[in-house]
Amino acid sequence: MKAEIITVGTEILLGDIINTNSQYLAKELASIGVDVYYQSSVGDNEERLLKSFEESLGRSDIVITTGGLGPTSDDITKEVACKFFNQTPVLHKPSLQNIEKYFKKMNIEISDSNKKQAYFPENAMVLENKNGTAPGAILKNNNKIIIILPGPPKEMKPMFEEFVKPYLQDKTKSVLMSKNIKILGMGESLVEKNLIDIIKEQNNPTIAPYVKEGEVSLRITAKAKTKNEASSLIEPFVDKIKERLGNCIYAVGDINLEDVIANMLIDKNMTISVAESCTGGMVSSTLINYPGISKVFVEGCVTYSNEAKRERLGVKKETLDKYGAVSEETAKEMAYGIASKFNTNIGISTTGIAGPDGGSEKKPVGLVYMGIYINGKTYAIGQIFNGDRQMIRLRATKTILNELRLKLLELS
Amino acid sequence: MKAEIITVGTEILLGDIINTNSQYLAKELASIGVDVYYQSSVGDNEERLLKSFEESLGRSDIVITTGGLGPTSDDITKEVACKFFNQTPVLHKPSLQNIEKYFKKMNIEISDSNKKQAYFPENAMVLENKNGTAPGAILKNNNKIIIILPGPPKEMKPMFEEFVKPYLQDKTKSVLMSKNIKILGMGESLVEKNLIDIIKEQNNPTIAPYVKEGEVSLRITAKAKTKNEASSLIEPFVDKIKERLGNCIYAVGDINLEDVIANMLIDKNMTISVAESCTGGMVSSTLINYPGISKVFVEGCVTYSNEAKRERLGVKKETLDKYGAVSEETAKEMAYGIASKFNTNIGISTTGIAGPDGGSEKKPVGLVYMGIYINGKTYAIGQIFNGDRQMIRLRATKTILNELRLKLLELS
Repeated sequence: MKAEIITVGTEILLGDIINTNSQYLAKELASIGVDVYYQSSVGDNEERLLKSFEESLGRSDIVITTGGLGPTSDDITKEVACKFFNQTPVLHKPSLQNIEKYFKKMNIEISDSNKKQAYFPENAMVLENKNGTAPGAILKNNNKIIIILPGPPKEMKPMFEEFVKPYLQDKTKSVLMSKNIKILGMGESLVEKNLIDIIKEQNNPTIAPYVKEGEVSLRITAKAKTKNEASSLIEPFVDKIKERLGNCIYAVGDINLEDVIANMLIDKNMTISVAESCTGGMVSSTLINYPGISKVFVEGCVTYSNEAKRERLGVKKETLDKYGAVSEETAKEMAYGIASKFNTNIGISTTGIAGPDGGSEKKPVGLVYMGIYINGKTYAIGQIFNGDRQMIRLRATKTILNELRLKLLELS
Repeated sequence: MKAEIITVGTEILLGDIINTNSQYLAKELASIGVDVYYQSSVGDNEERLLKSFEESLGRSDIVITTGGLGPTSDDITKEVACKFFNQTPVLHKPSLQNIEKYFKKMNIEISDSNKKQAYFPENAMVLENKNGTAPGAILKNNNKIIIILPGPPKEMKPMFEEFVKPYLQDKTKSVLMSKNIKILGMGESLVEKNLIDIIKEQNNPTIAPYVKEGEVSLRITAKAKTKNEASSLIEPFVDKIKERLGNCIYAVGDINLEDVIANMLIDKNMTISVAESCTGGMVSSTLINYPGISKVFVEGCVTYSNEAKRERLGVKKETLDKYGAVSEETAKEMAYGIASKFNTNIGISTTGIAGPDGGSEKKPVGLVYMGIYINGKTYAIGQIFNGDRQMIRLRATKTILNELRLKLLELS
C-alpha cells in the first residue's frame, strides 16, 4: 500500500518551523509497512492544494495531510479535500458538542469560525481531537483515501496513534523492521566496496548506508507478515556484514559509542582517566553522556598549555622541546601521565592542531595525536582530520574513543 | 522568481532523519525574496526523481536539491539531473584534484566511486565543497535551473552561503541584510513582551525571534537596493532593542558566547580554570572552541566523583557530608578550589544531577549549582533545567558561562 504525506502551511514554506510532522508520520508508516515514496509541503492555497491532491492520489492510494484545520479563514485543507472528492460537508453534531465542551472548560465564548471545524462529509470517518478543537477525518472516494490531521504535533500524534495507525495496520497486514549497524574506522565508499555484492543483490531486506558526523551506518530493513519473520530475514545479513567488516562495527542497534565503551569498562571493571589538549574536554564530556560512567570514570584533565602538560601530567620538558606538544611522544606521555597520576587502569590523551591557525608544513591544521595507556603499555596514533575547528575536535574525539574500543576488544 | 526545494534520500522517506535542510533553504530563500510554493522529498529512485524535476520545473524556474551526491551507487541526484537536462557529465579536473587532496590528507586510497563525484556537464557551474568530497553544481538548460547540493548540513549550508545565495541575490536584484541579536537569561515570551510594540509595527526591517538550545535570538532583516541603505534601516532597531534588553544581549552579529567571554578575559588579561562535575568537560570544551583561548585558559578538571572533588579541588569533607555534592556550598568550594590550585584570577564550577536517575524530592533531576570565584569573591547559583541528560548539561554550560559574562561586565 502506497501513501504520501502532504504538510500544509505557509510557516513550513517560509522555513519558520521545522517539519517534524513529516518525519513522525514517515517513521510510523514505515513501521507498519506502508510505502511512502513522496512527501510534500504546500501553502494554504486552494489551487495548489488541489493540484497536490491530484498528483499524489495519481501516484498513491492514500494521502495524509497535517495542518490547515484551524478555525480561521486561511485554514482550508478540509474544505479543499471535500472539494477534490466532490463531497459536501454537513454538521457533525458529536464534534460540535466536543468543541463546545472544550470552550466551556476554558470559559471562552465559542465563535462561529470554530463551528466550521464541526463540518464533515456524510461518509467521512471523523477522528476526535482530545487535545484541541480541530477534529481530523478519513475521507473516502472510490478506492482513494485522504486522511486529514491537525497541524500541532500535540494534537496530531495522539490522533494518529489512536485512530489512523490501527486503521492502516488493518489494511496492510504487514510489519517493517529495521536494524542499524554502526561503523567507525572505515569510510562509506570502502564499506560499500566490501559489501558491493550484498548491496547489489539486495531486495528484502534492503541495505542502505548513511554518513553522519564522520560515522558510517548501515540500515537493514525487512518487510514481512510478522516481527519474527522480519527479524529472521534481517539476522543472516547482520551476520554476513559482521563477517566482512569485523571490528569496524562498534554496535548493532541504536547504541552510542560511549555506551559501548562504558559497558566494556564496567564489565572489565577497568577505571579510566582522560587528558585532553585540543579536544579540550570533549572526550570526557562524551564518556559522561553515559549515566553510569561514575563507576569507572575517575577524572579528566584539560591540559591545554605546555606548563599544564608538564606539571599536571609529568610530560618531560625535553619531550616538549624536542618533539613539540603535538607529537606521538607527548601524546604517549600524557596518556601514561594521567593514568599513573590518578592510578587508573587506562589513560587516554589527545594533542593536536584544531586550527584555524597554528598549522605548519610539517604539522598541518587537523593533525592530532592520540595516546592510550592500557595494561602497562602505551600506544599513540596520529591522524589528520578535515573540517573546521569544531569538526576536527569531534573527529579526534570519536577516533580516540574508537581506538580505545579496539584495545579493549584485544583484552577480551 | 519561483523556486522549489527537493530533498532526496530514503532516510527522509523512512523518517530516519528530520528534514532540516528544507527549513534552512526555505528560510534563506524567503530572506532574499525568492518565492517557494512547494517543497518535496523523494527517494534515491531515478524514475520518481525525474518525475519530480518535471513537475517542479513545470511550476517554477529553479529547483534546489539536497542529498544523493555521495560516492555510492544509490547516490544518483546529479546523474538524474543531467539526464533530465540531456547533458553528459565529463570529468571536472579541479574537482578531482580537490577530492584527491582530501583523500591524500587523510592517507586514504581514493576509490573509483569517489571519482564519480568529479563529473559534471560542460556548462555547469561547479560549487566547491570545502567540508567534504561531493561538489555541488548549478545546472542550466534554457531558462530552467537545477541547483544540486550535498545532503550533510555541514557541507550544504556553507556551500549555499558562499555560492548559491549570491548567485540568486544577483538574479533577484535586491540586497537583503540581516543582523542577529543574541540573548541569554531572558525567555522568548519575555523578550517578545518587552518588544511587542516594535514587533507589531515591523515592516522593513522585519524582526523574527528564534529559540535554539535554550538561547533566544532576534533576526533583524532589511530589504534595500544597497548594503548601506539596508544597514541604515537596521541600526536604529538594534539600538532600540539594546535599550530594552540591556545585559541580556550578549552579542550583536554571529558571535558565540565563548568568543565574547574569551575576548573579555583576554582584554582584562584575566586567567581562568574550570572545575566540572555534571557538565563533565562541556564548559572547558566550549571555551576551547575559541582559537586564541590558550592565552587565558589555564586548566580544566572533570572531577566527577566526591574523592576527586576533595583531593583535586580541596572541597571539604564536611561540606560534602553536610550539604552534599550537589549544593551551593560545594559549587563555591569547587570554584574557589580550582582557582587557588591553579592560581588563576577566575575559577568556575558546575555540580548537578543530569539524570536520568539520581533525582530526589529535594534535589530533582535537572538541578545544577554553578560557582564562580572572581576577584577574591565566590558566588553560586542554583537552577533546575528541563530536558534530557544532554540538554540539562548543555543548558548548565551556557548558564554558567553567561553568569561569568555578567560578572565580567560588572568589572568594566
